[in-house]
Amino acid sequence: MTIKYFVASLMIGLSGVAVASPELPRHADLDLKTARLLADTAMANCTGTVSVLDRGGNLLVTLRGDGVGPHNTAASQRKAYTALSTKTATRLFAERARSNPETANLNTLDELLLLGGGIPLFLGTELVGAMGVAGSGGGEQDENCAIKAAGKTGLATTRSQ
Amino acid sequence: MTIKYFVASLMIGLSGVAVASPELPRHADLDLKTARLLADTAMANCTGTVSVLDRGGNLLVTLRGDGVGPHNTAASQRKAYTALSTKTATRLFAERARSNPETANLNTLDELLLLGGGIPLFLGTELVGAMGVAGSGGGEQDENCAIKAAGKTGLATTRSQ
Amino acid sequence: MTIKYFVASLMIGLSGVAVASPELPRHADLDLKTARLLADTAMANCTGTVSVLDRGGNLLVTLRGDGVGPHNTAASQRKAYTALSTKTATRLFAERARSNPETANLNTLDELLLLGGGIPLFLGTELVGAMGVAGSGGGEQDENCAIKAAGKTGLATTRSQ
Amino acid sequence: MTIKYFVASLMIGLSGVAVASPELPRHADLDLKTARLLADTAMANCTGTVSVLDRGGNLLVTLRGDGVGPHNTAASQRKAYTALSTKTATRLFAERARSNPETANLNTLDELLLLGGGIPLFLGTELVGAMGVAGSGGGEQDENCAIKAAGKTGLATTRSQ
Amino acid sequence: MTIKYFVASLMIGLSGVAVASPELPRHADLDLKTARLLADTAMANCTGTVSVLDRGGNLLVTLRGDGVGPHNTAASQRKAYTALSTKTATRLFAERARSNPETANLNTLDELLLLGGGIPLFLGTELVGAMGVAGSGGGEQDENCAIKAAGKTGLATTRSQ
Amino acid sequence: MTIKYFVASLMIGLSGVAVASPELPRHADLDLKTARLLADTAMANCTGTVSVLDRGGNLLVTLRGDGVGPHNTAASQRKAYTALSTKTATRLFAERARSNPETANLNTLDELLLLGGGIPLFLGTELVGAMGVAGSGGGEQDENCAIKAAGKTGLATTRSQ
Amino acid sequence: MTIKYFVASLMIGLSGVAVASPELPRHADLDLKTARLLADTAMANCTGTVSVLDRGGNLLVTLRGDGVGPHNTAASQRKAYTALSTKTATRLFAERARSNPETANLNTLDELLLLGGGIPLFLGTELVGAMGVAGSGGGEQDENCAIKAAGKTGLATTRSQ
Amino acid sequence: MTIKYFVASLMIGLSGVAVASPELPRHADLDLKTARLLADTAMANCTGTVSVLDRGGNLLVTLRGDGVGPHNTAASQRKAYTALSTKTATRLFAERARSNPETANLNTLDELLLLGGGIPLFLGTELVGAMGVAGSGGGEQDENCAIKAAGKTGLATTRSQ
Repeated sequence: MTIKYFVASLMIGLSGVAVASPELPRHADLDLKTARLLADTAMANCTGTVSVLDRGGNLLVTLRGDGVGPHNTAASQRKAYTALSTKTATRLFAERARSNPETANLNTLDELLLLGGGIPLFLGTELVGAMGVAGSGGGEQDENCAIKAAGKTGLATTRSQ
Repeated sequence: MTIKYFVASLMIGLSGVAVASPELPRHADLDLKTARLLADTAMANCTGTVSVLDRGGNLLVTLRGDGVGPHNTAASQRKAYTALSTKTATRLFAERARSNPETANLNTLDELLLLGGGIPLFLGTELVGAMGVAGSGGGEQDENCAIKAAGKTGLATTRSQ
Repeated sequence: MTIKYFVASLMIGLSGVAVASPELPRHADLDLKTARLLADTAMANCTGTVSVLDRGGNLLVTLRGDGVGPHNTAASQRKAYTALSTKTATRLFAERARSNPETANLNTLDELLLLGGGIPLFLGTELVGAMGVAGSGGGEQDENCAIKAAGKTGLATTRSQ
Repeated sequence: MTIKYFVASLMIGLSGVAVASPELPRHADLDLKTARLLADTAMANCTGTVSVLDRGGNLLVTLRGDGVGPHNTAASQRKAYTALSTKTATRLFAERARSNPETANLNTLDELLLLGGGIPLFLGTELVGAMGVAGSGGGEQDENCAIKAAGKTGLATTRSQ
Repeated sequence: MTIKYFVASLMIGLSGVAVASPELPRHADLDLKTARLLADTAMANCTGTVSVLDRGGNLLVTLRGDGVGPHNTAASQRKAYTALSTKTATRLFAERARSNPETANLNTLDELLLLGGGIPLFLGTELVGAMGVAGSGGGEQDENCAIKAAGKTGLATTRSQ
Repeated sequence: MTIKYFVASLMIGLSGVAVASPELPRHADLDLKTARLLADTAMANCTGTVSVLDRGGNLLVTLRGDGVGPHNTAASQRKAYTALSTKTATRLFAERARSNPETANLNTLDELLLLGGGIPLFLGTELVGAMGVAGSGGGEQDENCAIKAAGKTGLATTRSQ
Repeated sequence: MTIKYFVASLMIGLSGVAVASPELPRHADLDLKTARLLADTAMANCTGTVSVLDRGGNLLVTLRGDGVGPHNTAASQRKAYTALSTKTATRLFAERARSNPETANLNTLDELLLLGGGIPLFLGTELVGAMGVAGSGGGEQDENCAIKAAGKTGLATTRSQ
Repeated sequence: MTIKYFVASLMIGLSGVAVASPELPRHADLDLKTARLLADTAMANCTGTVSVLDRGGNLLVTLRGDGVGPHNTAASQRKAYTALSTKTATRLFAERARSNPETANLNTLDELLLLGGGIPLFLGTELVGAMGVAGSGGGEQDENCAIKAAGKTGLATTRSQ
């Protein structure tokens, strides 16, 4: 079976596109240029590891500062993912989770990391990505480092009303 | 430390948004309604397991047909992910990979599954998601089942020129 | 060695079936039609991610609502699995687990997720499957969403006496 | 929040069961007694490791013979799972897979193991479970050992017509 | 390169065995016969899932009772492993761990499971294996079920002095 | 519940040991002293990474030579495990596996690694452990390095007849 | 037990440092500044995903180009790790591996990825890190993109003699 | 495509090395000789399992004492990694983490293990590696055993000022 076969078979699929196309929503999404700007700005604010994810939760940038422990690489990525998926800064989300026995086990979800330093990134009313900082000296410092970078880049950490 | 503290600290971040916001690209993205239509249409075409992912590679729908072996659940999801990430139907991508010794090891990437049945979904020139079918009787049947569903839903399996 | 060889060898196995067959128990089991009804009903009740498992713990349906964070996909599946395997609603199971130091470590079992929103599904005295909801606004909301869907579908969340 | 609360809330769910219950299919399923008989019979035929799964793919029995290498434990379980999920003896399934370039990558699915020794178990027209043997001296020996055990227990390795 | 080559090369290795062989310790170890007796005795005492490991921590037997939730399979195996590796009943080990902040994180080791129901098995002064019970109705019941089985089989749960 | 409680409950178990104890097999097993000698001897023969396992497959020693790539650590351990569990040198086992289409998929078992450099260790007729070498310059060199070390330590790589 | 306690106990350790310190080797190692330069240069050469590791194999930088499939993130990191640990460009290493049946299974080591695009980075005679490119259009393009970036940054891809 | 091709293509890369080479930092790093000395000294102090990592977090040595439970192998390695990556003794790091609700979830990072017994190793102002001890009788004993070994080897557990 050859590649031609496949292409032919794909054409058959395409030939059916007389059907009306669906109307799909459109969303703003971080690009590499903005993600680099976010990461560089964070690295200028603090010495840590920073990761930036796009709207779909896929990594755009990771930068690890000199001498920063290697466990912070995954930590920065998971903080960013947690902020993205919960649309909430991880420090706030972690505080809420531990304040209620019914939600405390959110810290057992492998997909999430309930440590400060991850923030969602909004442009107006839209979630466009997230960033996470780890290893800069504690969750509060990590969060501040990320928030400052977002602010200087013109992105908000909460959805505008 | 209280939630108020956090909100205050987030406000500081927001107050910096006098900075010009970045211009970000906008992309069409599958929604649940369209994903459900794709999956239902596929299940009307064949008895298998079907999964649909959005533009970011995140699952929107999985449906497993009665009596379909459970290993097909992950298979359908991984086929869809492979089609999304390579922007290529998995059957074609697998053929290309195995036709060249330098690319044959693409089948050792955990993120990919090089079996027919996964297709990318395009609306015009934009990738908007992907779907994967498994367990309907072989990779060719799986792919046909998916292609028909895409066609009936008004989505293409290749980027329009 | 050819396929014929194998078939022949399987026949040898079959020829031995003059032996009396064992009497095996029979159980009711969710099918895709009912699982879809459960999932659709849940999605009409709340915006979250819902998963439905059959009696053996294998996924039948996952639907993720628009804008629901992607970490809820695994969460809904694991909640459903936990409810199935413990035959108990996850919210109640989690409360029991944390109320006793000897059982608190049940939250370290990878197979389980001790967060509200998973419920077992019974038909009369038989366990027939389970469902899990995540991301609708908290464990209590998730559970209510699932319970309502079960009720409207004619399935119970506890074994009838 | 107390356990009483939860029970009350579950009752609300139950009170809705005036709705007609769905009609669900019923299936025969291996029980421990039969699984034990299968495993003991296999161990009387050969020295290896044997595992038996129920209809849902969940383990009922594993027995490892004295001196059998420990890697055969997972192998016997995965062979059984593969036979169950594909409804095909693994030796035949593996031969089919490798005979076609389009299916060769089935051996990259973590859920499957394409080595002889796994067989599905049927009672009449119904799949009721599966068993896998590993470490008895090769895939052919493993398969023969399993087939004999099935035959002596009154179960078939192919669906009756 | 042929098999002969290898055998020849292995012979070279063997030819060097004029060297005095080392004196190695000898240890008693569970065999399948005793492991089966332990498992059967446990299953006669309670309805749960039972696993028995040999001295090296490798599985000899797993039996899952009818209707016992599938998450108990891994739980019974991990309890047994924990008892073997710590030479302590898991219920006691778990209590000690949680009674001291410095040891509480022992519950984060993937290799261990700090829930009652796992016991080490001693013959005189020697550790010979371990068993774990799960799903019989709680950690205390699980442990009692295992202890009784050990006692009836002539094995002790603590090292004799 | 206190530790005293547990000890009391364990005593109950012990009190039942009037039952005749089972007769268990006894096996020679590598100790750290011999394992250290094996590893040191290997490291004197070649620059690589060496691992030694006891009879149960548990690690006793790993030594990584200066400048040896870190992927060889897991490789040396997995080679040793493969040799132990198959009771065969990995180079020979790998050749046998690839020489037969029915066994080629043995290389898809996560528990095994089919690369030369792992050897089983026998004392007379007993398997007492295994060792693996990786990174010394190829599978043949790795195997030779291990075989020499075994020879000088007085252990054989095949069971004596 | 307080932090003071620990510090005191660490001091005891330090007080023993009258012992002569060992002489340790010193090695050049990539820093973030150089890693960033390598990654930026690569991204100027091609559209793909690039990762740079330090001498110890720990990530310094990942950048993913706009529209590059997300599976390339792990691929670029694993290619870089493979080049580092084998001190060989992955394209060459992969060719060598597949040219010999004894080494073909190197593609089953999870730690390695045998696809072109990873290169080791040397400064004179010292290995100082590695980089990997994925998703730029094939292994050859990926490798060229990486080699050019190394060259422009003043690093070599082979050890100087 | 031949190996010659690759070598040629690598040469092209090298030919570009007229560019000035970057100035890279140089760091002291543990070697195998010192790591063995550390491990042997620890094993003379206590009966446990000891692991030593180099500056990049890669394993140099693991030794497991006779009769020490196998779960301590991974524990000793993860303790060492945690000490390396945090540049802090794990016992102190664990105490700090649990003393603050915002950092308590550090124990959910798979990369870290917050149990006493891991110490970083410094030579003057430089981090050169880390070691971890497990299974010697508790975190305090494990730590003391490691600290003594470091002291006798001439390495410090804190950075000199």
